[in-house]
Amino acid sequence: MPEATPGWVWAEELSGPGGRVILAEEDSRYVVRVCRARAGEAIALTDGRGAVARGRVDSTAPRVVVAIEALERLPETRRAVLLCGPAEGPRFDWAVEKLAELGVTSVRPVHCARARWEKVALRADRWRRLARAALLQSRGRFLLEVEPPAELEATLASSDREAFGVLADSDGGSPGELMIPPAGTTVGVVGPAEGLTDQEKTSILGRGFQSIALSASRLRTETAAVAWAAWWASAGASQSRGKATTSKS
Amino acid sequence: MPEATPGWVWAEELSGPGGRVILAEEDSRYVVRVCRARAGEAIALTDGRGAVARGRVDSTAPRVVVAIEALERLPETRRAVLLCGPAEGPRFDWAVEKLAELGVTSVRPVHCARARWEKVALRADRWRRLARAALLQSRGRFLLEVEPPAELEATLASSDREAFGVLADSDGGSPGELMIPPAGTTVGVVGPAEGLTDQEKTSILGRGFQSIALSASRLRTETAAVAWAAWWASAGASQSRGKATTSKS
Repeated sequence: MPEATPGWVWAEELSGPGGRVILAEEDSRYVVRVCRARAGEAIALTDGRGAVARGRVDSTAPRVVVAIEALERLPETRRAVLLCGPAEGPRFDWAVEKLAELGVTSVRPVHCARARWEKVALRADRWRRLARAALLQSRGRFLLEVEPPAELEATLASSDREAFGVLADSDGGSPGELMIPPAGTTVGVVGPAEGLTDQEKTSILGRGFQSIALSASRLRTETAAVAWAAWWASAGASQSRGKATTSKS
Repeated sequence: MPEATPGWVWAEELSGPGGRVILAEEDSRYVVRVCRARAGEAIALTDGRGAVARGRVDSTAPRVVVAIEALERLPETRRAVLLCGPAEGPRFDWAVEKLAELGVTSVRPVHCARARWEKVALRADRWRRLARAALLQSRGRFLLEVEPPAELEATLASSDREAFGVLADSDGGSPGELMIPPAGTTVGVVGPAEGLTDQEKTSILGRGFQSIALSASRLRTETAAVAWAAWWASAGASQSRGKATTSKS
């Protein structure tokens, strides 16, 4: 039986080798209809909090049961947190998907002086679904957390003070020449289409953030968000992959 | 009259200072309905081939006429050419928009051993419209060219041999640590969801391409395309902006 790419499936709670995991109804459907996995086949489960369990499908009805053979939990050695000003309507949907694929840790929609997020609550569920689907698609082990919207200033004040802070700013330096995000937490700020005010920029830079230009051209908010994530992801590509390799048990 | 951000509009052909440009019907509608520009107002026109003309709206009906005050044509000192394997259905639409925003020069859909583009002709018009809209949105001066699909091998054979070649490959090095795309032309290859064959990879690397990992996680084809463009764009952000600054006449 070819098992080169076993299904990669969500499980709210995992168990250790020898244990059994009963998948939720929705995840059971995913295993049967999307992965088309049958009894006896290999499968990988993740809880989105760093753990991946490998096992075999034991039974598929009424819900999928997986017999666990190995469990590994890795710490998140690189974290990317994005504070993002309002994007236009549904445009942020794909940004959430792409941030999740690129392995961003969390995204927090922030209200800015010139623009506020609207009707965010209505999209939060959709964003969480997109993030989870992207996690499985990209075979990741850390789920992108989509936080509730908050004021920019308050969010900055509560951010990790040890983090490497970066402000996406068309007047900033070119990141390729200047800096590579280190291990640990990187916090990014992307402003709204209307731009950040001078006061907001001063506050951000006053907290030790460095401003970087992501492109010579003017980017939409959601494009800047994804470009920032791509910059962060590319710098850590081999570091994190080295870690992931040790997970093959 | 506040003229901080005059409209940025497409014009097929420009003229020098003192000349008049009559916009096409579609572009005239854009000026009136989207930019809401009226007679006497400042406006910028680009031909998408490096030239930007600044002038004032002379009249708006039946078509918009612009009196040109300044014309500047810049050479394209950095070029990014992307050869991209098939993406799923409409997912490539937004990649085209984002590649255009990030200033990529051209994208060529390539047929690969494991996957071929289908019905591309039907989307080519849509991609061109998206690229043009993104150019205006980002106030760029070089239009993303969406080329017709071609075989990977033939496209590689006809590519600029002096270019800096990069293969997006999850087994590659981390670009942030290893390399920054130089001035001149950078050619990238992004494979299809099914992956490139060993033979295809060997052929690409045999042409001097370097393989880079864009992320520790597995990316969809269209995400890899945009991540590659973001990597290229960020490295040249200040270089190109330096150039663009001199365009303010």
